Amino acid sequence: MKVPKPSTCVAPFSCNSRKEAIGRRVYGTDTWLARRFLQTIGDPPLLVTLWDDTKIAPPGSTPAVGMIIRDRGALLRLLSNPQLHFGDDYCTGRIEIEGGLAQFMETVYRAMGQTPRFRRTSEPAAYRRHQPHLNSLEGSRQNIHHHYDIGNDFYRLWLDDEMLYTCAYFPDPNASLEAAQIAKMDLVCRKLCLRPGQTVVEAGCGWGALARHMARHYGAIVKAYNISHEQIAYSRERAKLEGLEGRVEYVEDDYRAIAGTYDAFVSVGMLEHVGPDHYQELGGVIERSLTEQGLGLIHTIGQNVAAPLSPWFLKRIFPGSYPPTLREMMALFEPFEFTILDVENLRLHYAKTCENWLDRFEQNRDQIREMFDERFIRAWRLYLSGCVANFSIGELQLFQVVFSRPGNNRIHLTRSHMIADTGVP
Amino acid sequence: MKVPKPSTCVAPFSCNSRKEAIGRRVYGTDTWLARRFLQTIGDPPLLVTLWDDTKIAPPGSTPAVGMIIRDRGALLRLLSNPQLHFGDDYCTGRIEIEGGLAQFMETVYRAMGQTPRFRRTSEPAAYRRHQPHLNSLEGSRQNIHHHYDIGNDFYRLWLDDEMLYTCAYFPDPNASLEAAQIAKMDLVCRKLCLRPGQTVVEAGCGWGALARHMARHYGAIVKAYNISHEQIAYSRERAKLEGLEGRVEYVEDDYRAIAGTYDAFVSVGMLEHVGPDHYQELGGVIERSLTEQGLGLIHTIGQNVAAPLSPWFLKRIFPGSYPPTLREMMALFEPFEFTILDVENLRLHYAKTCENWLDRFEQNRDQIREMFDERFIRAWRLYLSGCVANFSIGELQLFQVVFSRPGNNRIHLTRSHMIADTGVP
Repeated sequence: MKVPKPSTCVAPFSCNSRKEAIGRRVYGTDTWLARRFLQTIGDPPLLVTLWDDTKIAPPGSTPAVGMIIRDRGALLRLLSNPQLHFGDDYCTGRIEIEGGLAQFMETVYRAMGQTPRFRRTSEPAAYRRHQPHLNSLEGSRQNIHHHYDIGNDFYRLWLDDEMLYTCAYFPDPNASLEAAQIAKMDLVCRKLCLRPGQTVVEAGCGWGALARHMARHYGAIVKAYNISHEQIAYSRERAKLEGLEGRVEYVEDDYRAIAGTYDAFVSVGMLEHVGPDHYQELGGVIERSLTEQGLGLIHTIGQNVAAPLSPWFLKRIFPGSYPPTLREMMALFEPFEFTILDVENLRLHYAKTCENWLDRFEQNRDQIREMFDERFIRAWRLYLSGCVANFSIGELQLFQVVFSRPGNNRIHLTRSHMIADTGVP
Repeated sequence: MKVPKPSTCVAPFSCNSRKEAIGRRVYGTDTWLARRFLQTIGDPPLLVTLWDDTKIAPPGSTPAVGMIIRDRGALLRLLSNPQLHFGDDYCTGRIEIEGGLAQFMETVYRAMGQTPRFRRTSEPAAYRRHQPHLNSLEGSRQNIHHHYDIGNDFYRLWLDDEMLYTCAYFPDPNASLEAAQIAKMDLVCRKLCLRPGQTVVEAGCGWGALARHMARHYGAIVKAYNISHEQIAYSRERAKLEGLEGRVEYVEDDYRAIAGTYDAFVSVGMLEHVGPDHYQELGGVIERSLTEQGLGLIHTIGQNVAAPLSPWFLKRIFPGSYPPTLREMMALFEPFEFTILDVENLRLHYAKTCENWLDRFEQNRDQIREMFDERFIRAWRLYLSGCVANFSIGELQLFQVVFSRPGNNRIHLTRSHMIADTGVP
């Protein structure tokens, strides 16, 4: 059995359960339960270390990652509902990981995907499972506030200079995060065939980078909606500083409040928060907002099968979120006879993006520790590592979908304009 | 009112109904019925000429196309079910078109799409409407025989040299049909990242051009399935003549009989004949046929909404056919957790392809007349013109979908390999 590398869990913190648990006796039932746990999750090549240093691994496996379980309670909770309790017990330090958290999660997810209990298959209304808040106007506001309004200073520490919190695009695999985020914005603008003087409405604009980019580099007039108060405040301030005030307007409101008609509709990383129950509503907003010759682009995390996200993730990180399958996304388009022109899956770009975020997050751990407690830091490390793992092994996708009205023939015949600017179609 | 251009219906033929009808009196009820017919189809800018030369057009319209109705029966049939009877009465000469058949159809389809009766909306099981044959093993055989086994000599007169009967790809809008068909095959091969020595299975190979192209230019070993006897005989003969026998095998059998595993699965223009009831079955065939790192490509006519094809088209041209929406196509992929990597809509390329076919068809009309009767010629002119119209106005789409298994990371990060060969991912 290969011994796991030393822990990369760089800042294990002491907690009561750890102090109490260490030195406690391990019984035969405990090793049997640990063995049972490994079986349940598909016997991944994983070394489990119990609180008295007893080690258990699937027979014949050569683990490269390890998991230290600090007390019996954590072991029992793992057996009952690993998808919920692993996260919470990792955050309190009752569980520690050896060999890299993202690598651990990849290893475990791969094995779980092969078991009947955790096999990913589509289920009706998967998005409703484990969801405490619906994405009504008020529900959306709460859900978005929970994640995005925890402090711009925190996000600044691990996002790029322009504060893009969505999948970047790496035309060169060694591009920096900064370069890749700019390349992503250019890709979006080229897919939308954006021209000077055209009007754009953006649904869910984050910290406003894409709207500023469209105005500055493509001469567009952009109206950008977002319900996160902190993000809107930041966006307005920055547009003002950069002299873009007349060309970019940030509106603190829900996508359902979008008014007017525009040459382009764009939404990057909002659909995950809309919920399939509201796709047709969003489609109706696009239907009334897009000019006859307009183009639309929706960029969203997606899935191959309609399965719910983990209950821990929904509870602690992104309440109300759901990454749709392409089939589910069609509820946006089909009722309004929109034409799908192009779909690109940028999954591996998102794995790279999340790796960059995680690296920067760890590099700035000390500063983050001044803002939040250790439990928060471990939750975010787990979330970012989980994203790296999910995009790497293909449990999550990133779909960029370009669409138009059905009879729009003012479109490019080939994709060469997406690679480089080739003029008006 | 703008007078329509002289008839481009180049070979009007005499038929009994015409002789009987000309000179017959037109009553007030007839002009009222003609007016009613125009209203029903959304008042397109269309000049209707009745059998005694009475002319009717929507008030205020400036028609550029015209329709001559030769007798009262044809007028009544148009009123009862235009989508079925227009075709049959056009074929027998009871209806003539002035101003170009494709242009006429574009004009009429656009107007019909705006009416409540003919508005295109998704309906459950749209593909079952007007369908006499299901696509069981035997049903498929009958349906395919009906269209593809009417003589290779006929198809040779209006297809390209390689006998491709699917959407071409025009990297340059002025490319010849020959060049565009070769460009299409290269596009497919590049999307599949095809390398020398790789194995490919093709479902529904037509006259076998793609399989030969893959073997000749990409060094692939191809097994190609088709249930059309004439197409398989032609394919084998041609592969033999071109010295490709050892590298391309044509199998006269149904896609459901595909055996073995392959580095690539490809199907160009077959899904239209499969029927949504059998998509999951086809998905299962792909699931068992594709290697772990394999890529798949499905190229199919599609729609924005799940609406049935016209009953005339289903009766006379392609029984058992149905162009799916992207949502419906997902039944192929989602149950097997396939990842959609890329979707390209080549709709305008198909409009161009059909224009090329129609031109060549008309150029070779005299030779075709030696093979078939006038009714057949008019039916095929109507079919090809209808395709030009449907792809031009966006009632039909052409989706090229690339997919893989979920955890396949041996894929290109960008699309540059689709534009030009960039090596192994």
